[in-house]
Order: sequence, then C-alpha cells, then structure tokens
Amino acid sequence: MNAISSLDRIRIVLVETSHPGNIGAAARAMKTMGVNRLFLVNPQIQPNGQSLAMAAGATDVLSNAVICSSLEDALKGTTLAIAMTARRRDLSHPSAEIRESAIQAIADARDGDVALVFGTEMSGLSNEDVLKCQRIAHIPVDPTYSSLNLAAAVQVVCYELRMAAGLNELPAKPEFPLATFEEIERLYRHIEETLTEISFLDPAHPKRLMTRIRRIFSRIRLEREEVQILRGVMKMVLRTARLGKTNGSKTL
Amino acid sequence: MNAISSLDRIRIVLVETSHPGNIGAAARAMKTMGVNRLFLVNPQIQPNGQSLAMAAGATDVLSNAVICSSLEDALKGTTLAIAMTARRRDLSHPSAEIRESAIQAIADARDGDVALVFGTEMSGLSNEDVLKCQRIAHIPVDPTYSSLNLAAAVQVVCYELRMAAGLNELPAKPEFPLATFEEIERLYRHIEETLTEISFLDPAHPKRLMTRIRRIFSRIRLEREEVQILRGVMKMVLRTARLGKTNGSKTL
Repeated sequence: MNAISSLDRIRIVLVETSHPGNIGAAARAMKTMGVNRLFLVNPQIQPNGQSLAMAAGATDVLSNAVICSSLEDALKGTTLAIAMTARRRDLSHPSAEIRESAIQAIADARDGDVALVFGTEMSGLSNEDVLKCQRIAHIPVDPTYSSLNLAAAVQVVCYELRMAAGLNELPAKPEFPLATFEEIERLYRHIEETLTEISFLDPAHPKRLMTRIRRIFSRIRLEREEVQILRGVMKMVLRTARLGKTNGSKTL
Repeated sequence: MNAISSLDRIRIVLVETSHPGNIGAAARAMKTMGVNRLFLVNPQIQPNGQSLAMAAGATDVLSNAVICSSLEDALKGTTLAIAMTARRRDLSHPSAEIRESAIQAIADARDGDVALVFGTEMSGLSNEDVLKCQRIAHIPVDPTYSSLNLAAAVQVVCYELRMAAGLNELPAKPEFPLATFEEIERLYRHIEETLTEISFLDPAHPKRLMTRIRRIFSRIRLEREEVQILRGVMKMVLRTARLGKTNGSKTL
C-alpha cells in the first residue's frame, strides 16, 4: 500500500450542499491535490451546468460522485470519519487542527477508507452528524472573520492530505550544469586580477573587498555557463585596461 | 514586533487579474487568515459588484486594495518578493514549496514588507515579473491536473502564512472537568467488582479482560461526570445481581 493508494482511500463527503457551483469548485479543488472520491449527501440541487463550469476540467470527479440519501450511507465501509467544523461544540470530542488530522487520515487510509465530512454552507454540520464521526478537525482561521468558503475549505483540507501523503516531487534539478568549486575559485582569481589591473583593488591594502565579492557570488550557485560569461567580461576588461596602458594611458 | 504584525506586513499582489469574482474571492480567502493588504497590478476590470459578492464580508480588504500600474509600484518598499508559479521555468531560480517559503516570509516580515505575487488566471506570471522577485514558490499539486483556481491558491498561501505565524489558538479547554487518575482507577475497581459479581470475570482465571477494559476507557479521557454515570450503572448492576442471589437466583 503506497502513498498514492492512501489518497485513493480518502472520501470527501459534502452534506446538503446548497450551491451547485460550490460542488464544482470543490471537485476542482480535490482533483488538483489528487483526491478524487466525492460523496454528496442530499445535495440541495443536483450537480448541474454551474457545477461543471466551476469544476473546470475536474468533470470526472463530478460524474463519479456518489450521491447518498444519508450520512450513514456515505460513511459505510469507512474506518475513520473526520467532521470538519468551525464552531465550538458542547458535549463533543475536542477539535484538532487539520494538519494533525490529515496525517492521521493518511496513516489510517493505508488500511481502510477515511472520510472527511463537510456541512452546509450556512450552518456547517449538525451535532447529530458530528457524533457519527470519530474525530473533529478545523482549519485555523482569524477569529474575527472565519467565513471560509466551502470549496476553499476543501482546498486546504486536500492540500494538507497531499502534504501528509508526502507525494510531492523533489525540487527540480538545475536546468543547466552548475559550476564546480574549482571553476568558481578561478573566477574569483580572475576578478581579483582584473580589479587590481584597473586599480580598484590595491594588493597592498586589499581591505575586505574580495570577501565582499565572495559574499555576493557565493549566494548565487552559479552555472558553468554563467562563470564563462563573467570570465569573458573580465577578459575584456583586462584587455581594455592593458591596451590603455600600452598606449601610454591615453584615456586617463 | 510580534506575530500579528508579521501578517500585517504581508502584501498579496495580484497581477493583471481578469475576473472580478476572483479578486473578491481572493479578498475573502485572505481575510479568513488575517492577511489584509491587497495590491492589484493592472486589474483587467476594476473590482465591481461581482467582486463584492464573492468577497462575502471581506469588503474592507477590497476597498483598501492598492491599485498599481506596474509590479514595480506594488513591490516598492518590500524587502522580499516571492513569485507564486506553477510552471517550471528556464533561466530562473529554483522553486520552493509554499510551506517553506511561508516560514521565510513570516520571518522576513518581522523587519520589512514581504510580497507574495500571483499572475493571471490563464498564464501566471511573465518571466519578466518573476525576475523582479527574489524567490519562487509553488503549491504542490497533482502533476496530472494542476489547474488551481487563483482564489484557491491565495487561500492555501494565506493559510500557510497563518500557520507559519503561529497565531493559532491552543486547543479549546475541555468544556467539563476531566476525571482524575484516582477517579478512573476507582471506576476500574468498580467495573472489576461488578464483572466478578455477574460471573463475567473469573478472578481465578482473569485472562486479559481488565486489560481490554482499560484499553477501551483509557482512550476516552473521561470527564468526572461521565465517571459518575458509569459508576452509577455499576452500582445498579451490582445491586440487581446481589438482589438476585438473595432471592435464590430466581432469574438464573
């Protein structure tokens, strides 16, 4: 059971969603994160053209959505159901942040289906529905304005599921070969020689000039070709400076 | 400079956004996370009624938005600008995951303004605009379907900024007082006595029954009142069982 199969065992359950556009936007949010199994409990309106428009290419998630007449139906076969809720509730289990819950969800999804359950746009989940779930989670929000859109909440939850599944690619390899240590050291010598030649650097009183130069270039991770370009510049500066001296410093 | 001020120093910069609804939805996404400074570079349409509708109460973010005629204007005074981009680019700096970049952004926002820069809905940021930023970041997505909606991307970014700022409240305190260790131990003794009385537990061959019982109840974090309820049940079972025995085990 690998990490991809874990995401395949995640169900996003939307209970009594009112706006078909939200269902479409939720489908799109899911698919961007590789979460594809949508369950709709008593949607107030069946997914329609507006859902398709908001789904923007995630139509397979919509057309494969399972429509259920009760939350029990949507949770059949799951081993863990997590109620997403913003409100603080009496007489219920404590709410965890979604980052922590997503890790739990992905861990449990190695062995069984896991549902993340979202309530209506206006009032969230009923207490009755929350008590059908084994865990409660919330997305941390600003307490003075906690009006998270349904699809936006689905987006953050699926993002955290993907992060927890550890599916993300390693940073891209550099497009072009990086310069080696020796190449960069030769560049510094070339720069030093050039700065001396143009009398910007006094070898008798160098101060910290070359250190400053190194601080600039060491941060860049120069590519081989970039080192060649910079050395080409130095070469031209040197040639110009020496030519000027040969010609009796006419230009000075 | 505390963590709240860090979020106050974050600028969300939207470059040449086409759909006013996206601007409104982005404003709402920002405000839910406590990020309030919106900069619009050459919006294709000025924020309008559709923006206001999608902003759903985040109208202050919209009305305080700074409209700029160039990205340079929007970046004036920043010490760090992070380009949000999905596409892999030639000749540019490597892209980091937004979780890592958000931590950097919040750290730098202690001392200066930090911008997160988003491109157009269709084609993202131009290479020219990316090169005006010092860092590139991306939201990890499913490589087979990476069509993240603009407001959804703003939502995930602002969520990560909020998480990085460490502003979230500690888990809510339990609504009701939890039972102490001693109270729970007394409950276990009460259960054991009861199970013995009803001959479910044989003290000569207890096997692992009490261990199983402990495994069940230890996971719950029982409240004091719940312990009292459970002990009330035990008391009744005990009384019934003893009464049965006194009456000559009539019911057996």
